[in-house]
Amino acid sequence: MISLDKHPSGRHFLQIPGPSPVPDRILRAISLPTIDHRGPEFGALGRQVIAGMQRVFRTRHPVVIYPSSGTGAWEAALVNTMSPGDALLMVETGHFATLWQKMATKLGLEPEFLALPGTDAATGLPNAWRHGVDAGLIEQRLARDAQHRIQAVCVVHNETSTGVTSDVAAVRRAIDAAHHPALLMVDTISGLASADYRHDEWGVDVSVSGSQKGLMLPPGIAFNALSPKALARTKTAKLPRAYWGWDEIVEMNAGGYWPYTPNTNLLYGLSEALDMLFGQGLDAVFARHRRWSAGVRAAVAAWGLPTQCADAALHSPVLTGVITPPGVDADALRKLIHERFDLSLGTGLGKVKGRMFRIGHLGDSNELTLLGTLAGVEMGLTLAGVPIAGSGVQAAMAFFAEAPDLA
Amino acid sequence: MISLDKHPSGRHFLQIPGPSPVPDRILRAISLPTIDHRGPEFGALGRQVIAGMQRVFRTRHPVVIYPSSGTGAWEAALVNTMSPGDALLMVETGHFATLWQKMATKLGLEPEFLALPGTDAATGLPNAWRHGVDAGLIEQRLARDAQHRIQAVCVVHNETSTGVTSDVAAVRRAIDAAHHPALLMVDTISGLASADYRHDEWGVDVSVSGSQKGLMLPPGIAFNALSPKALARTKTAKLPRAYWGWDEIVEMNAGGYWPYTPNTNLLYGLSEALDMLFGQGLDAVFARHRRWSAGVRAAVAAWGLPTQCADAALHSPVLTGVITPPGVDADALRKLIHERFDLSLGTGLGKVKGRMFRIGHLGDSNELTLLGTLAGVEMGLTLAGVPIAGSGVQAAMAFFAEAPDLA
Amino acid sequence: MISLDKHPSGRHFLQIPGPSPVPDRILRAISLPTIDHRGPEFGALGRQVIAGMQRVFRTRHPVVIYPSSGTGAWEAALVNTMSPGDALLMVETGHFATLWQKMATKLGLEPEFLALPGTDAATGLPNAWRHGVDAGLIEQRLARDAQHRIQAVCVVHNETSTGVTSDVAAVRRAIDAAHHPALLMVDTISGLASADYRHDEWGVDVSVSGSQKGLMLPPGIAFNALSPKALARTKTAKLPRAYWGWDEIVEMNAGGYWPYTPNTNLLYGLSEALDMLFGQGLDAVFARHRRWSAGVRAAVAAWGLPTQCADAALHSPVLTGVITPPGVDADALRKLIHERFDLSLGTGLGKVKGRMFRIGHLGDSNELTLLGTLAGVEMGLTLAGVPIAGSGVQAAMAFFAEAPDLA
Amino acid sequence: MISLDKHPSGRHFLQIPGPSPVPDRILRAISLPTIDHRGPEFGALGRQVIAGMQRVFRTRHPVVIYPSSGTGAWEAALVNTMSPGDALLMVETGHFATLWQKMATKLGLEPEFLALPGTDAATGLPNAWRHGVDAGLIEQRLARDAQHRIQAVCVVHNETSTGVTSDVAAVRRAIDAAHHPALLMVDTISGLASADYRHDEWGVDVSVSGSQKGLMLPPGIAFNALSPKALARTKTAKLPRAYWGWDEIVEMNAGGYWPYTPNTNLLYGLSEALDMLFGQGLDAVFARHRRWSAGVRAAVAAWGLPTQCADAALHSPVLTGVITPPGVDADALRKLIHERFDLSLGTGLGKVKGRMFRIGHLGDSNELTLLGTLAGVEMGLTLAGVPIAGSGVQAAMAFFAEAPDLA
Repeated sequence: MISLDKHPSGRHFLQIPGPSPVPDRILRAISLPTIDHRGPEFGALGRQVIAGMQRVFRTRHPVVIYPSSGTGAWEAALVNTMSPGDALLMVETGHFATLWQKMATKLGLEPEFLALPGTDAATGLPNAWRHGVDAGLIEQRLARDAQHRIQAVCVVHNETSTGVTSDVAAVRRAIDAAHHPALLMVDTISGLASADYRHDEWGVDVSVSGSQKGLMLPPGIAFNALSPKALARTKTAKLPRAYWGWDEIVEMNAGGYWPYTPNTNLLYGLSEALDMLFGQGLDAVFARHRRWSAGVRAAVAAWGLPTQCADAALHSPVLTGVITPPGVDADALRKLIHERFDLSLGTGLGKVKGRMFRIGHLGDSNELTLLGTLAGVEMGLTLAGVPIAGSGVQAAMAFFAEAPDLA
Repeated sequence: MISLDKHPSGRHFLQIPGPSPVPDRILRAISLPTIDHRGPEFGALGRQVIAGMQRVFRTRHPVVIYPSSGTGAWEAALVNTMSPGDALLMVETGHFATLWQKMATKLGLEPEFLALPGTDAATGLPNAWRHGVDAGLIEQRLARDAQHRIQAVCVVHNETSTGVTSDVAAVRRAIDAAHHPALLMVDTISGLASADYRHDEWGVDVSVSGSQKGLMLPPGIAFNALSPKALARTKTAKLPRAYWGWDEIVEMNAGGYWPYTPNTNLLYGLSEALDMLFGQGLDAVFARHRRWSAGVRAAVAAWGLPTQCADAALHSPVLTGVITPPGVDADALRKLIHERFDLSLGTGLGKVKGRMFRIGHLGDSNELTLLGTLAGVEMGLTLAGVPIAGSGVQAAMAFFAEAPDLA
Repeated sequence: MISLDKHPSGRHFLQIPGPSPVPDRILRAISLPTIDHRGPEFGALGRQVIAGMQRVFRTRHPVVIYPSSGTGAWEAALVNTMSPGDALLMVETGHFATLWQKMATKLGLEPEFLALPGTDAATGLPNAWRHGVDAGLIEQRLARDAQHRIQAVCVVHNETSTGVTSDVAAVRRAIDAAHHPALLMVDTISGLASADYRHDEWGVDVSVSGSQKGLMLPPGIAFNALSPKALARTKTAKLPRAYWGWDEIVEMNAGGYWPYTPNTNLLYGLSEALDMLFGQGLDAVFARHRRWSAGVRAAVAAWGLPTQCADAALHSPVLTGVITPPGVDADALRKLIHERFDLSLGTGLGKVKGRMFRIGHLGDSNELTLLGTLAGVEMGLTLAGVPIAGSGVQAAMAFFAEAPDLA
Repeated sequence: MISLDKHPSGRHFLQIPGPSPVPDRILRAISLPTIDHRGPEFGALGRQVIAGMQRVFRTRHPVVIYPSSGTGAWEAALVNTMSPGDALLMVETGHFATLWQKMATKLGLEPEFLALPGTDAATGLPNAWRHGVDAGLIEQRLARDAQHRIQAVCVVHNETSTGVTSDVAAVRRAIDAAHHPALLMVDTISGLASADYRHDEWGVDVSVSGSQKGLMLPPGIAFNALSPKALARTKTAKLPRAYWGWDEIVEMNAGGYWPYTPNTNLLYGLSEALDMLFGQGLDAVFARHRRWSAGVRAAVAAWGLPTQCADAALHSPVLTGVITPPGVDADALRKLIHERFDLSLGTGLGKVKGRMFRIGHLGDSNELTLLGTLAGVEMGLTLAGVPIAGSGVQAAMAFFAEAPDLA
């Protein structure tokens, strides 16, 4: 039988920003026997998880669940609402924003890729990858689009590649201030269920998410939360679509069913995850992630290393990007840490490859696990000969000992 | 915690033609902790399951694994090879062939839907839904396509809605006899790993399959097996695609990785399933399904009910469609059996709705489980007042007792 | 990893009278991470399962849970209440009564072994092994014990080796009618939670049970339910004891703890089992077992084979002993059935070895599973050349179809 | 379903010296369906785990496996070899040695309890609880026993209550030097499979162990390893016994079976544990525990707190006892740490109650988990106002970073 026995002893420290560590309860739930996806027991399950996801997205409108990765849910957002050649306004905040933009191009759309200009003097990294979405730039750009060619504004809520969480409500205000009819589409794949998110209140038309981050499931299911305006677009949107088509799914979801075979066992896990999240309360879950994030940043500051996120108000509760000193290959450091301490960290992606690593602090975790993680990083820095200003572990211990309830 | 406790006692009898009963070993495997999909342990797993799936498809060419349902793999086959408006020759063999044809239309293709004409006198059902693919008709149609407008011939190997297994090699011979360059695309979602299947030897260009049938996994991953000719088509095929794009996946698969987050935990299950299948030998697995099918047919014959499959050479090893007498609502019968005996049977789909039910005999099963199933059906027939000619259970017992090794 | 892969395909039919098939929910529960057996979480679990077991035994008095097999709980009953050389009145009802009697001898006690005399003319088997406890014989024997040398009457409630369920209340009435102070000790290892059992109402002093039968757990924990009179005996009982000592356990159980390390993970399973049993209602559970038993007996009668239990009022709801015709080696038959159909049946034990086999119908089961089981037995009888009068499967189907609610 | 959800988030840190953290593979293994304990599949499993346990104990002689806690295996060692009133020489090394001595008294034996005299000046604790077994004292005592009244010398290998690992080979040399025929009985409940242990080479007659320590299983099975001399004693030993009787078990073990129902599912786990231990190599497992122990001691030294073990050569690889400063209630500290950081530490038992706590470093663990643990303790010390000399976490990081392979 599969043993996954490459770990010398004990639990692997999975500290990447997703897939996140999956709680034991959820792992047991997904191992229950598969049932008939057309039977009454499944229908009840289907209705329950859809209602639960509406609560997580804070929406009264339909949520569509796909058997796919989060990337599939990006595609679904576009093909249900767009026609070939449609213009989009997308915002470069990092690697995942870039991938979504490339996808739009592949699908025959015309995305304009808005970015903060310039390079950060201190680190040499692009400014766009250290800051959040600039709503002012969006407003200016939309104001210039007098013919309303731009069909949608697409932003990433929590940039998994950088650790910056953008202000989505501000983007909605910018669109409204420009009196522009563009849809607002938001990727909250790594934000949902770890960071506060309000689909309806923030006026989002399509929210995109996935299972393997704040929902603490293995990868394999993904989500679109819709607005009535987005749903209405399916009538005119001309991109070909079948698998991703909302209409048929939403119609069958009324009974708790899907047009094709849904991912039964991961939906067991989703049911379990929703029980856990609502049992604890989403606000408590968000506060927990904020506290973890602040503790990890205390460590990074003590080491004397810059965080990728350059804006104090936008630090992600989900992950922290750490920039390595010039000349230090962040991936070599990660490899050393993985081999010596069985600790997985996130790599630098795209334009920051080799210049940073990412510490995930999400999912089924706690303060001691994070302190073990920080100890692994600190030992790795030492072994790699990277000079550090002080002990990050000490700083994080001081933080966690004093501030258990960072609301 | 989720309890799935609607079953009064004991194991639910999941006798639909997929999702199939999942072996206990596989359920445990998918519950192992999620790992980093970019780490070395995952890479080894990825390479292992891809190589294993090549062995199952009997191909030396790439096999692409998607986080999706089988429906997604249909779409992948089309969007990677076709351009808007391309003509397809599809063959009506039942509900799933019809769904694939509708999908092609939705995607902007022009499928011609070839079907055996007429209605069966005895049952009143369409002939096309009781017989396999007629290779002769295909050859005739292709021969008339002098300009080679038809880009692909699409057939279903094992029609899950009828219980007819078509002769795929004959379709390849028909295409070749017509000297036609069309691709051959085959849906073997419910055939693979239960029935003999030979991607390379039969000259298939794209094979489509899914996890929740002969592979004995929960739903959630799906497959495309490719030919070099199919792969070459991606250079000219103009349907928009991103998530389904073969090129990037095949390139990253060399290392055992995927461009987006793969379904880690179901891939653990796939690894386990492959160990089980190869440990027993695929030929033994096929023989087992043939034996089960013959035993179930012995029961249906004893009841005096017709099977949906009207061609003795094409009975599916995976499922048996049973036609109910005129006036008997097959779905009311299924409901009675479900409520009284906790036994799920497959419904009649599309043109045969209410006229038949399907008994699945695939996946993690055995002779006694099938006899329990047949007993449930027989008691249900009695309780519903359906006259039967004799005891199907007796006939199946006689068969299984005498013929353990139907090679 | 351990694969337990000797089963060719599908679920093994575990139709022995214990260990019984364990529900999937319970198997998942016992796989949750082990916790500190001295921590507050465990204390809550401990109190919960003890209270639940009091409800199952129908007692207001202490229930002691041991990490041991049921055999250990036999020993515990004796060493906590007896002194070396004490006389016991035990009743021969089959193999397990005999084992308990042998144990008493090993422990230095002096058991008198009361048995129905003679041999059954039809089968040649001892009468004692085909009937229940004769309360009249007990009353007569106690009446002759004017000095009250007999310290306890020990009987087996549900004889797992024969399929006879004795009338425990009648034994209490017999003791009282003889105005005898002997304790009443009852082995209900295979009766509890499948058959009605009332520790307090029936005046039992020590009830002995185990986990792997009606409680549907794996083996590994066992039980003593006590009366105040039994508990008081520990002050004078002189058999050496430590591990089995009630006093210390009962004292620590008040907080939900044990003097030594309890079997944490099986106690998770016990918690889950209690949730299932109380969720369904014990009366419904008992009715289910009675119905199963009647269905199986219908089959045995149709085959024309005698049941081991010769008293129509005492048929066990848990198992049915089936006597094979003279000259038929029941163990050879069992072996054939195991090899051909992956079905485990219980062997004939002790004085009935080779003359009978046992069909378990307990735990996580249902009607179709039992019909599959009966089909396996019927095919085995045919293959072994054992003449049968008719189809047992047909008879059982007729029974189950007509009589779903045998209250 | 049982949820064990008292943990706010993430994995509980189970850092008591047993039950130890159970590997995920083992938890899955014990959740596989229960099988017939009399069938051929079980027989193969039984033979495999017995052979494996012989390898772990390093013995060619029988190993007996009980469904019981380790306490039961203490009792088994005594009742199989002793007669009422027999004299034993037991050695006080801590709480568990004391419990075994009390058990011997309860069973009617006459243990003499040898102890290092006096109290440690620095800590006020009994010397006997800070040092290992003094073989010299044993030799002197046996030399005085000219009539060989002493039937056995009983020592604890790894005292779980103190963190001292005694030299068992030295005890054997002492017995031999005194030319005394007493049996040597050794409790290695918490030593086996974490520390080097050699039943045959060290001349041990009965070794006692349990599942929930180095074997990394949940509690519920326990072991006796025997010598031929010990086995021969069953012929003359007169303590009553049945459940614990070696003879019948050893006889049935030849086929892989037991006289009563064995703990099937924990034996699955044992099979898996043995695969893991032998796969890594026992020497590597021992070295790992030594390294962990040294790292934890580096932390304790940096805090400026004494370890319970006062002899540098005898520090346990399994746990470290930490003495709190006068006036600091160690249990209040443990409670604070448990509530704030979800970390379980071992309590001070018996004579050291309130004066010390124990850090377990055994089972499925690794360096980062231990650093998280030490961070929890260090934060707890700070929050409790306990003055510490320096950062134990820093010291342990320095140790682990520099010394990965402490052979």
